[in-house]
Amino acid sequence: MSASAPIPADAEQRLRRVIRDVPDFPQPGILFRDITPLLGNAATLRLSIDLFAAAWRDHGIDYIVGIESRGFLFGMPLAYALGTGFVPVRKAGKLPHKTIGAEYTLEYGANTMEVHADAVQPGQRVLIVDDLLATGGTAAATVALLQRLGAEVIGLAFVIELAALGGRAQLGAIPTQVLITY
Amino acid sequence: MSASAPIPADAEQRLRRVIRDVPDFPQPGILFRDITPLLGNAATLRLSIDLFAAAWRDHGIDYIVGIESRGFLFGMPLAYALGTGFVPVRKAGKLPHKTIGAEYTLEYGANTMEVHADAVQPGQRVLIVDDLLATGGTAAATVALLQRLGAEVIGLAFVIELAALGGRAQLGAIPTQVLITY
Repeated sequence: MSASAPIPADAEQRLRRVIRDVPDFPQPGILFRDITPLLGNAATLRLSIDLFAAAWRDHGIDYIVGIESRGFLFGMPLAYALGTGFVPVRKAGKLPHKTIGAEYTLEYGANTMEVHADAVQPGQRVLIVDDLLATGGTAAATVALLQRLGAEVIGLAFVIELAALGGRAQLGAIPTQVLITY
Repeated sequence: MSASAPIPADAEQRLRRVIRDVPDFPQPGILFRDITPLLGNAATLRLSIDLFAAAWRDHGIDYIVGIESRGFLFGMPLAYALGTGFVPVRKAGKLPHKTIGAEYTLEYGANTMEVHADAVQPGQRVLIVDDLLATGGTAAATVALLQRLGAEVIGLAFVIELAALGGRAQLGAIPTQVLITY
């Protein structure tokens, strides 16, 4: 299965059924897509990781990059399944050693994501993983961070895409895998 | 390998060698044990998860419980390896559905950890995973949360224990696995 191949419809339906809609979280008017029932079900947990692994197994990935904190949930088992290392991208001030940072804008204000400056070497091939592609701000900042370290960003992988928010436009031509699209 | 068996000395040494000491983080006088080089090395990432999996495979675990956020890093691949579900325990306000909370005290002030009220059913068997056992406050609060839901806490597993801080005394007689002790 290639990274850009669609997810088989039956697999997509199995995952979609265990996403829980929570209205008005984290604020009024927002419909939150809760992944915790997917994690709580051993079969859908395994299915989600195996779909990611099947898509990226033959791409010579050196590191899975997981974005704090729900990207840690999917990125680490994927690194384990593929036999790669794992690099955490965290909110400002959380990583203990020398870091580089990239700022991204939110509806109100801005946030900074950081990665250890020695986390990858130039030319190494990385796959960026997070739970949700919404506006794409966090993902684009993470792509920029890894490219500044000289890494080759081979792709991005998300459990859920909220397509109406247009996040893909932030990701340029980088191959992007999504398990469930709303 | 049983949960209480010591880690083989060669495996413990391989892991210890990739822990990076960072002085004065997060504040002056604290020596921080940085696990990111362990994660960045595919072999030690795999070894850490496989040591956890070998110890708990035959204990009939229903759920791995991971404590935000570094407990997510080790808990999810362990759930994947054992074929169980995963339950996140998060800081207050992060989980979207109905939760229960437990407060624990820090040197100055207090924090609250939360779990979804429907995350486990009475009698289910859970293993709690985090990166670090220090004073044991977060771990003890997580044990209390899961027991209030009726779960049977079969054990706890940590990458690192800072033995001088006495955290084990907070955990009663629950079997506890540690990969590296300082």
